[in-house]
Amino acid sequence: MSDKSKLQIIPLGGLGEIGKNMTAVKYDESIVVIDSGLAFPDDELLGIDLVIPDISFLIENKEIVKAILLTHGHEDHVGALPYVLREIKPPIYGSKLTLGIVEGKLKEHNLDDIIMNVVRPRDMIEIGPFKIEFFRVCHSIPDCMGIAIHTPLGTILHTGDIKLDQTPVDGQMVDFSKMVELGEKGVLVMLGDSTNAEKSGYTKSEKIVGNTFDELFNKCSGRIIVTTFASNVHRIQQAINTAHKYGRKVAIVGRSMVNNVKISCQLGYLDIPEDILVEMEDINSYPPERMVIATTGSQGEPMSALTKIAMAGHRFVGIKPGDTVIISANPIPGNEKLVARTIDLLYKLGADVVYARESGVHVSGHAAQDELKLLINIIKPRFFIPVHGEYRHQIKHAQLAENMGIPWERICVAENGSIIEISKKKIRLAGKVAAGRVFIDGLGVGDVGNIVLRDRRQLSQDGIIIVVVAINKGELISGPDIVSRGFVYVRESEQLMENAKVKVNEAMEICARKNISEWSSIKTQIRDKLGKYLYEETGRKPMIMPIIMEI
Amino acid sequence: MSDKSKLQIIPLGGLGEIGKNMTAVKYDESIVVIDSGLAFPDDELLGIDLVIPDISFLIENKEIVKAILLTHGHEDHVGALPYVLREIKPPIYGSKLTLGIVEGKLKEHNLDDIIMNVVRPRDMIEIGPFKIEFFRVCHSIPDCMGIAIHTPLGTILHTGDIKLDQTPVDGQMVDFSKMVELGEKGVLVMLGDSTNAEKSGYTKSEKIVGNTFDELFNKCSGRIIVTTFASNVHRIQQAINTAHKYGRKVAIVGRSMVNNVKISCQLGYLDIPEDILVEMEDINSYPPERMVIATTGSQGEPMSALTKIAMAGHRFVGIKPGDTVIISANPIPGNEKLVARTIDLLYKLGADVVYARESGVHVSGHAAQDELKLLINIIKPRFFIPVHGEYRHQIKHAQLAENMGIPWERICVAENGSIIEISKKKIRLAGKVAAGRVFIDGLGVGDVGNIVLRDRRQLSQDGIIIVVVAINKGELISGPDIVSRGFVYVRESEQLMENAKVKVNEAMEICARKNISEWSSIKTQIRDKLGKYLYEETGRKPMIMPIIMEI
Repeated sequence: MSDKSKLQIIPLGGLGEIGKNMTAVKYDESIVVIDSGLAFPDDELLGIDLVIPDISFLIENKEIVKAILLTHGHEDHVGALPYVLREIKPPIYGSKLTLGIVEGKLKEHNLDDIIMNVVRPRDMIEIGPFKIEFFRVCHSIPDCMGIAIHTPLGTILHTGDIKLDQTPVDGQMVDFSKMVELGEKGVLVMLGDSTNAEKSGYTKSEKIVGNTFDELFNKCSGRIIVTTFASNVHRIQQAINTAHKYGRKVAIVGRSMVNNVKISCQLGYLDIPEDILVEMEDINSYPPERMVIATTGSQGEPMSALTKIAMAGHRFVGIKPGDTVIISANPIPGNEKLVARTIDLLYKLGADVVYARESGVHVSGHAAQDELKLLINIIKPRFFIPVHGEYRHQIKHAQLAENMGIPWERICVAENGSIIEISKKKIRLAGKVAAGRVFIDGLGVGDVGNIVLRDRRQLSQDGIIIVVVAINKGELISGPDIVSRGFVYVRESEQLMENAKVKVNEAMEICARKNISEWSSIKTQIRDKLGKYLYEETGRKPMIMPIIMEI
Repeated sequence: MSDKSKLQIIPLGGLGEIGKNMTAVKYDESIVVIDSGLAFPDDELLGIDLVIPDISFLIENKEIVKAILLTHGHEDHVGALPYVLREIKPPIYGSKLTLGIVEGKLKEHNLDDIIMNVVRPRDMIEIGPFKIEFFRVCHSIPDCMGIAIHTPLGTILHTGDIKLDQTPVDGQMVDFSKMVELGEKGVLVMLGDSTNAEKSGYTKSEKIVGNTFDELFNKCSGRIIVTTFASNVHRIQQAINTAHKYGRKVAIVGRSMVNNVKISCQLGYLDIPEDILVEMEDINSYPPERMVIATTGSQGEPMSALTKIAMAGHRFVGIKPGDTVIISANPIPGNEKLVARTIDLLYKLGADVVYARESGVHVSGHAAQDELKLLINIIKPRFFIPVHGEYRHQIKHAQLAENMGIPWERICVAENGSIIEISKKKIRLAGKVAAGRVFIDGLGVGDVGNIVLRDRRQLSQDGIIIVVVAINKGELISGPDIVSRGFVYVRESEQLMENAKVKVNEAMEICARKNISEWSSIKTQIRDKLGKYLYEETGRKPMIMPIIMEI
């Protein structure tokens, strides 16, 4: 084998973080990419809409990127595709539902030149030096697959997002046989989902939620509103089934849930009893004890249907005492307060609200420690790379693997951009490629960076003071005019603003006296003098923007 | 009894929220106030440092506010005192430790004219028409008390923050006898801590954490860093005791913990074995297996000691592989991501980290449902008001009380500012007083309101564009100059900024052509024209600030 016949795995997203999952596998002069996800911005990324992986590495290697393989249709696995596919255009492979979801996205972004290939579980495809096999796994959206990539050096197995649900709602079991078969033949490297590596035990089956729905629907005499992730088709199926059992109609409310239900019906992933669905406009024509509303907003998202309902601002759904709202989701870290606020508002309107971990209205879509152990036991990989998780999740997963008998030197806790080089004997970090976060803000992709964010942060804390002076040949001929935003309520701070002018005048005089005529020096003088005064008076440090006009 | 002999309870903070607890009790022409707490700002309160209650009602009734009674020394119960006591100066009553903590605060704010009276559990004082009795309760800081206010109409019992710890670390048990006695004699109104009303079961004893410390210290061979709330003196005591047992020295790190340890030692609430404390500067003179560091930062607060340690930026404490960090606290809602980031950073530096709910390193300081039931059973109040909690906590607590046999019409779920009027037969809402949030930003108290916050929010999202033009008798003589902050990275957007100038010139020309000379109309024209262009180009809506200078 030449030097180029190295096998490299290069995670471009999803390590040290939750979201924007993306992994490149390189052998010889061929690359395949697993997933292209996005992440939602942290609070500190002010004004940012979405975060996608930095794909400079793929763009540089454009010619040899042979395919993007998708494990499932969640945003954190397919959401970056519309941006990635502007830059590189390899064919995409995924399950029927996954590509159904992707198709809609690409249409919205006017990307109509992408080749999409539907693959089914147990399909085997050949791409360059790779033989690629897909196998069914369970998660919290239908039609999920793990991926085995057979390379001349050995097999790479990526679990995708996975849980070992023994009683999945659609009866589509995790393909244990295939994983056992692969394990028996020998897996060189396993990449495993670490999201729940902190959780002991075994994640409960999705069917448990159906049982809870049954109990709740049985005892509720009023209207029932169920909110969950729009992509959790099995959850929606269970809500519909339970509604059917208790003779209730169902209305679907919220754009993304309407879309998902539509796609899932068309592609045969939802089985809806005849005449059960009613239009949102008609919900008030049915008595409350005959209605179920399935809706978006389980994360308290400000623009979602449930939030509008909770704020009494939804066009068709108004909460009445006697209504029961079931929040069939846990808050994603960072959303706790938004969800809590929604619950409070719903209570205030008189609804009963069923939520919280112990209530049985939600189960996770990710394997907990006992499942992760089982996976390692049947796959028996030579090398192990924990993926999909923040650093502590990776570490916990790595420690778990070590406890299962994989020596620490065969475990690789990597980061985004790590070049993980694998031989039959060794796994090692062999450098880095560019990797990181690209921010999407409005129409801009990557045009907001650290400087803009730093400014937004300063503006958000203490606002801005703008000082304008007009000068002619070094002499002040108009101003200073001072305007502020986000600093103090000016009408109640007239004296402060007057004094601020005096300070600017003093700064200008000092400059005149010292023959300082360079604009940048004058500006610095104004900033210092005014900044000091404002800090003494208010304890705040607004951004100070001196603007000098030469007339 | 005249009309003035009404008994009114007026919550001024702590209802529909966690924090800034404050309740006024009014009878005849006398008011006593229970607690004066602050709250920490939500993320959306950009730049705000602290939130305190609106006390207009107390200021209006200044002359008849006879006392402030304190239940314990946590910030959410005493933190607003320095601001409240600028406006009204009634004497303060509290336990020794509580007043010890308050004293320090008042000194910092140069408030030296306040009368402070130490009261002990079972003390009875008379203030106007009130006989006020204090009784011991457990919580997560020593020296906590509940308060019974005997009025001519009956007894009001306020639990304060409470847990029914059967094995408190200091052996100071909840005064069940007193509560039973009060219950037997008849309690007219009970105000109960609702913080944990969502939690089933019984909150574990603080002693449990000591057991966990023992297990961890026993097996750790490296240095141990324990972080908890600085005010959790019993937790610190247990860490010190365990260190002593295993022959380790202890260093206290972090300003607020150093302060709290000092006050607690002086007042006799901490019992520190001789020679066990070492100075922060000296920690590296001891072998790791002989050291324990107790530190602040359990909430991932950006400026805290643990955060500095985790970012490898602490002057004296550097993490080494083999160190164990015990995070002996749960994240307060809203802090989850900060805490998670700290944990990740500590792992990256090679520490082992013990955290999470199941690990036994933290217990709550608030009573869970089974304790709340017991309290209602022994106090047997005629009327019940759930306090200290967001709306859903109040509702859960109210439902619990109803299930215990208190009829719903005797339960009052109120909000801040509600006037709760109580007769022997009835509890009812009798109007509202001014109540709400006063923001503290730097030195300013209440000078930042909705307009300033709205501006900060807009600035934080898309930044600002400043357009300056100089005109003389309606004619443009200089500019437009355009400056932006927090919008785009200007060096890479020169064309955009050039085009923006063109748009402003077009706007000015339109004004000239239409003989628009009013400045506000010119500004509107510029804002509209430029805003539309920038939104089309970038999908963003920066704040646009046109500034016109007349020369």
